Amino acid sequence: MNLQSLNKMNYGMYIISSRNNDYSKINAFLGNTCFQLTASPINIAVSINKENLTGDFIEKSNVFTISIITESADMKFIGHFGFRNGRDFDKFSPEIYKYKLGDNGSPIILDNTNAYIEVNVKNKIDVGTHQLFIGEVSESDILNDEISMTYKFYHEVLKGKTPKKAATYI
Amino acid sequence: MNLQSLNKMNYGMYIISSRNNDYSKINAFLGNTCFQLTASPINIAVSINKENLTGDFIEKSNVFTISIITESADMKFIGHFGFRNGRDFDKFSPEIYKYKLGDNGSPIILDNTNAYIEVNVKNKIDVGTHQLFIGEVSESDILNDEISMTYKFYHEVLKGKTPKKAATYI
Repeated sequence: MNLQSLNKMNYGMYIISSRNNDYSKINAFLGNTCFQLTASPINIAVSINKENLTGDFIEKSNVFTISIITESADMKFIGHFGFRNGRDFDKFSPEIYKYKLGDNGSPIILDNTNAYIEVNVKNKIDVGTHQLFIGEVSESDILNDEISMTYKFYHEVLKGKTPKKAATYI
Repeated sequence: MNLQSLNKMNYGMYIISSRNNDYSKINAFLGNTCFQLTASPINIAVSINKENLTGDFIEKSNVFTISIITESADMKFIGHFGFRNGRDFDKFSPEIYKYKLGDNGSPIILDNTNAYIEVNVKNKIDVGTHQLFIGEVSESDILNDEISMTYKFYHEVLKGKTPKKAATYI
């Protein structure tokens, strides 16, 4: 068995955000395991480590938003959302990277992104260390024509690493 | 709502194969919605249209294999696995593209691929038009160092289309 084969799979790069149920807090993290499951209606899924604060918020609010990262993002941006814990660091205040609140109350990241997708959670699947949230798209828009970053670009061009908590850590 | 935003998400390109429960038939189809859900143990998921013959086989055998497609694949190869129905066309006999049977009895495609992942299904989630199969990796290997094809490469370089039955059809 050679598990390096899993590194040959491809993904996009996303910021997944949510809010708690009384709209008093927001958080977001960087992930690659977002994907469309069906076309009609459009179901989107995301796999989130159970230790993740954004996952706790989604559990309560049943909404999340995906902001699609572009190739313009640098490692400082990746590190801000991907390698900091929302429990002891506020990723949105002060506002280092521009954002706005979407219809569902979750933040849409406006720097280094080209589109966003808001999702209402319909189903939650326990997959051990991670929770899989599945839901329908409630709102979505394109922000600009920049090129989306792939997981491959992140590893090969930015020389980025995959943290241990990530779904695709090998 | 602008659903073209969904086209900014990225995926890999895969051939997903299986066999029926008595090992008498094999089939495979081309898809992009394969992804790793967890790292320990390694859980892999795939979303498959319920009309799909390979999905019927996975329902019965509880195994599937992912072969990871490389940039060497042309539209003839894509069409063979992606735009033909296994119910009225045998994709493996005559053997137009090389394959071998893996440990779980599903075919591993050897042309235009760089790795394979064999999966034992542990959970099945109904998502309307599609079934989401989740399972643990039982065997996996790298075949060569060719570059994996991304969904983006398929659309932009090969000028490929997304069929209506696909999870990511818009």
